[in-house]
Amino acid sequence: MNQPNSLEHKRHTLAHLLAAAVLEIHPDAKPTIGPAIDNGFYYDFDFGAEKLTDKDLKDLEKRMRKLLPSWKEMTGKEVSKDDAILQFSTPNGTNEYKAELINEIVTKGEKITLYTSGKFTDLCRGGHSENPAKDIAPDSFKLSRLAGAYWRGDEKNKQLTRIYGLAFDTKKELDEYETMMKEAEKRDHRKLGKEMDIFEFDDDVGPGLPLWLPNGAIIADELEKLAKETEFISGYDRVRTPHIAKDSMYLKSGHLPYYEDSMFPPMEYEGGKYYLKAMNCPHHHKIFSARPKSYRDLPLRLAEYGTCYRHEKSGELFGLMRVRMLEMNDAHIYCTEEQFADEFRAVNDMYLKYFKIFGIDKYVMRFSTHDPKKLGQKYVDEPELWKKTEDMVRKVLVDSKIPFVEVPNEAAFYGPKIDVQVWSAIGREFTLATNQVDFAVPKRFNLVYADKDGKEKTPLCIHRAPLGTHERFIGFLIEHYGGNFPLWLAPIQVKVIPVTDAEAHVRKAQETHKSLRAKMIRSELADPSTGFGKNIRAAKTARIPYFIVIGDKDMAAGKVTLESRDNGQVGQMTTDEVTAKLLGEMSARI
Amino acid sequence: MNQPNSLEHKRHTLAHLLAAAVLEIHPDAKPTIGPAIDNGFYYDFDFGAEKLTDKDLKDLEKRMRKLLPSWKEMTGKEVSKDDAILQFSTPNGTNEYKAELINEIVTKGEKITLYTSGKFTDLCRGGHSENPAKDIAPDSFKLSRLAGAYWRGDEKNKQLTRIYGLAFDTKKELDEYETMMKEAEKRDHRKLGKEMDIFEFDDDVGPGLPLWLPNGAIIADELEKLAKETEFISGYDRVRTPHIAKDSMYLKSGHLPYYEDSMFPPMEYEGGKYYLKAMNCPHHHKIFSARPKSYRDLPLRLAEYGTCYRHEKSGELFGLMRVRMLEMNDAHIYCTEEQFADEFRAVNDMYLKYFKIFGIDKYVMRFSTHDPKKLGQKYVDEPELWKKTEDMVRKVLVDSKIPFVEVPNEAAFYGPKIDVQVWSAIGREFTLATNQVDFAVPKRFNLVYADKDGKEKTPLCIHRAPLGTHERFIGFLIEHYGGNFPLWLAPIQVKVIPVTDAEAHVRKAQETHKSLRAKMIRSELADPSTGFGKNIRAAKTARIPYFIVIGDKDMAAGKVTLESRDNGQVGQMTTDEVTAKLLGEMSARI
Repeated sequence: MNQPNSLEHKRHTLAHLLAAAVLEIHPDAKPTIGPAIDNGFYYDFDFGAEKLTDKDLKDLEKRMRKLLPSWKEMTGKEVSKDDAILQFSTPNGTNEYKAELINEIVTKGEKITLYTSGKFTDLCRGGHSENPAKDIAPDSFKLSRLAGAYWRGDEKNKQLTRIYGLAFDTKKELDEYETMMKEAEKRDHRKLGKEMDIFEFDDDVGPGLPLWLPNGAIIADELEKLAKETEFISGYDRVRTPHIAKDSMYLKSGHLPYYEDSMFPPMEYEGGKYYLKAMNCPHHHKIFSARPKSYRDLPLRLAEYGTCYRHEKSGELFGLMRVRMLEMNDAHIYCTEEQFADEFRAVNDMYLKYFKIFGIDKYVMRFSTHDPKKLGQKYVDEPELWKKTEDMVRKVLVDSKIPFVEVPNEAAFYGPKIDVQVWSAIGREFTLATNQVDFAVPKRFNLVYADKDGKEKTPLCIHRAPLGTHERFIGFLIEHYGGNFPLWLAPIQVKVIPVTDAEAHVRKAQETHKSLRAKMIRSELADPSTGFGKNIRAAKTARIPYFIVIGDKDMAAGKVTLESRDNGQVGQMTTDEVTAKLLGEMSARI
Repeated sequence: MNQPNSLEHKRHTLAHLLAAAVLEIHPDAKPTIGPAIDNGFYYDFDFGAEKLTDKDLKDLEKRMRKLLPSWKEMTGKEVSKDDAILQFSTPNGTNEYKAELINEIVTKGEKITLYTSGKFTDLCRGGHSENPAKDIAPDSFKLSRLAGAYWRGDEKNKQLTRIYGLAFDTKKELDEYETMMKEAEKRDHRKLGKEMDIFEFDDDVGPGLPLWLPNGAIIADELEKLAKETEFISGYDRVRTPHIAKDSMYLKSGHLPYYEDSMFPPMEYEGGKYYLKAMNCPHHHKIFSARPKSYRDLPLRLAEYGTCYRHEKSGELFGLMRVRMLEMNDAHIYCTEEQFADEFRAVNDMYLKYFKIFGIDKYVMRFSTHDPKKLGQKYVDEPELWKKTEDMVRKVLVDSKIPFVEVPNEAAFYGPKIDVQVWSAIGREFTLATNQVDFAVPKRFNLVYADKDGKEKTPLCIHRAPLGTHERFIGFLIEHYGGNFPLWLAPIQVKVIPVTDAEAHVRKAQETHKSLRAKMIRSELADPSTGFGKNIRAAKTARIPYFIVIGDKDMAAGKVTLESRDNGQVGQMTTDEVTAKLLGEMSARI
């Protein structure tokens, strides 16, 4: 990323170019800060009383393109504080924002550097294109939108005008990004969630607390069923734990006081304090220790769709993506050091199995390791366990050919960690799940097993949640499938539509519907009085994977006609054949 | 129950007889209050400094039998306050307990009556055997135990000595009751729950908050699966609702302030108050009103294994029977008046289906109706709806031949109600579930549907929970089955035991175990090093419904031997045959 002429350098350079264009058209504006971001860049300006419009954006974009050919290099030089402040003085006085930044640089004892290209100079640490005119294609960027932003993100400060730009290496990539974002807007999980009756919020229930409507409950139930089956076959034991616990639990786990800000406030009760569950681990540890354990009991894999509660601020809530109550596909695997590699490999295989089921083709595991220099401070002081588990994790990742990046010095306090990032069908990135190895907490909870030699030992613990939370995963799936859920996840799986309201058609439709439901297929019966064409259109709008049509020809043949949302007409079949076909696809989850 | 010479009258008479015996042997004792109870009677005495022992109980019981033949009648008379107080004076002074009762009777403006039999007279409202000597069999009662009890149940008052007696119509019934109680002790859900690793409590989690261990989670999951299947076939829609809600929700529902004492205290958060869910109804009402409804949407049946929280005092908690967090097999059926009878009948049929599955042969529905004189006060003022729904409920109960008793003037405020009482296999009574008709709350939540005539109408709502809560139902099932869960509920369904630790036996056992688990059968593999006999005994002690034995003869035949916990040896079968047999029984839930 940080190579010369990387995309990040181009984006950073374009932020300078934007500021240059602004100063040419609006000479009184005060530039403040302008970084590269994920899809381009932005720059915050103090325009005084002036309000910019979309027309101004167009003008600025044109001016940037006009200036670009003259930016043939970017040169940096170190300057004194006074020279730097002078640089940002205007006829109307000092640029107080740049002055504040310069003072901070001085206070930290760092050097002040200015970078110049064309006629424009900015306060900057460097990291630009070497030859912007040559490196940056004029059609690879655009100014996308205006927004308000407080100076330094603090609402007590003055509100500035932020100009956002999109920038990629080529016009093609820019176009693709814009197409993806337009598609993402159409697939927005909040929009489809409402249209498809998946979830709803209610003022009396409270923000960040989704009510799952019947269609959403079906999706959540199916995901839970998938997890239960997968985990059963993989030798997990399911448990169920209460949603509250006393303060002593969270003092033991260390959530109190370190995590208190993220927890709901306590309920005081009979002289004790009860907290909503912040995480499932402490409860699972309690189940581990509820009975004496021996090496014969390990590995022990305790699984639960466990509910946790987070004290997210109202302003940070976002549809299903950021909520206050989460149902998590959680499990804790207690194992010996010898068992660790196999267990970790099995967890990885489970991820791959899930990716395949959901058609997730692009994913990467972000493998965060420790820094040996920070043992005993940032990281628990177990140098051998760190080395051993990190080596094992790395080997599993390499052997299984899973794409991964290794990020030094970002592990958790208690062990290495893996963040799983996936891309939806339209190419948007989501962080869905975290896997963690835990050396430390099992000790805090005095978890022990009697080893073969009769000695008490502390197990390792793997925290894992491949499907993340219902909330975030269903939010992701809505976008990923654009609402076209595969048969096994579709809230309504098949709609039975009589061609006319003739009694024979209606009766056959009712029988077919009833026999499908008796086989646990989520069938819906169309109201014949609505009219055939309207019923067909409604089934398509509702994105129902299959519909069954019953007309005279079908009646004569003793069959029905099956049509597929994705593949058009399937053909005439008996009800039993339809049932077998649907059950087969449901159980294969294809 | 309140007929002359009813069992209740006998029990009440025996309380008098006990007091008479006490005064003969302990003339200084002060009798206080002594009622009939479910299995007999008790009487509380102030014995001063004297402590009674089991030996004293034997003596008192003998004395009761000696006195009984002389109690040939019980006669009552009305007396003045002074005469009454004088009656209970002893050489040591007034009986202050009786004096307090007498004063209360006078304050209420009621008459004071004394009843005498033999030489003993007590303050009493009546309700005795007419001729105790003739009516009460001397071997049909016994004194069972001593306990401490505060005067009027208030711990600020003096502690008295309570003497409990058991009493039935015949010695046979008394013996049966004692046998049942001994069996109930063996089957105590707290004892078996521990032995069978079903649930556990933990101090850091808190009292009344069971952790479901893997074996318990399996039972809960299976019950949930049964409910989901049954409700799917019956046209219910599942929903999922948050476990917390703002105070405005519970002010609307009326839980606040009327039910506040039964709720956990609120969590104050961003200026709002959040409460743990007291009941699921308000959340379901919110789902009803999340989308506009028409008559075409009714009946709408919203189902959820919903979690509720109750502020039960520590002293009132009891195993799984009285807890602070309950997972309830809840549903709310919204329907028109025309649909009500069919819906109510379907709910009843579901009860009967469940009773059959669980082998519950004895049950009764307690049908509580309103009192027309109290309309507008104790009961919502809808005289026609009361009459109509009560008539419909009664007709359904009569038509379906369900045993029921009708209890006037015990309905809920908002409609008639049915409490479902069942008896476990050993004859103990449990109240498992409540069905209620609700006229009032849908109005408070402004629930409406557009009727055929285009007018907005309010639906009726049926609250129903046939399986009650996981906690209470599993507690009941543990006793009902004495831990011998049927195959479909058994935590471990089959244990695979190789006859020796020869490699061939062990490999075949492993293969069999693995292939059973791949079919979602909860198989456990025995450790051959433990020894065959010990493994067989362990499987029996763990009450595993089936075990599979693999020896040389089985290997030679390419089969395994299946044995049943309940029916002994089943015979040699192939693994596929065993799988088919077990899957068949599991899906039939036999």
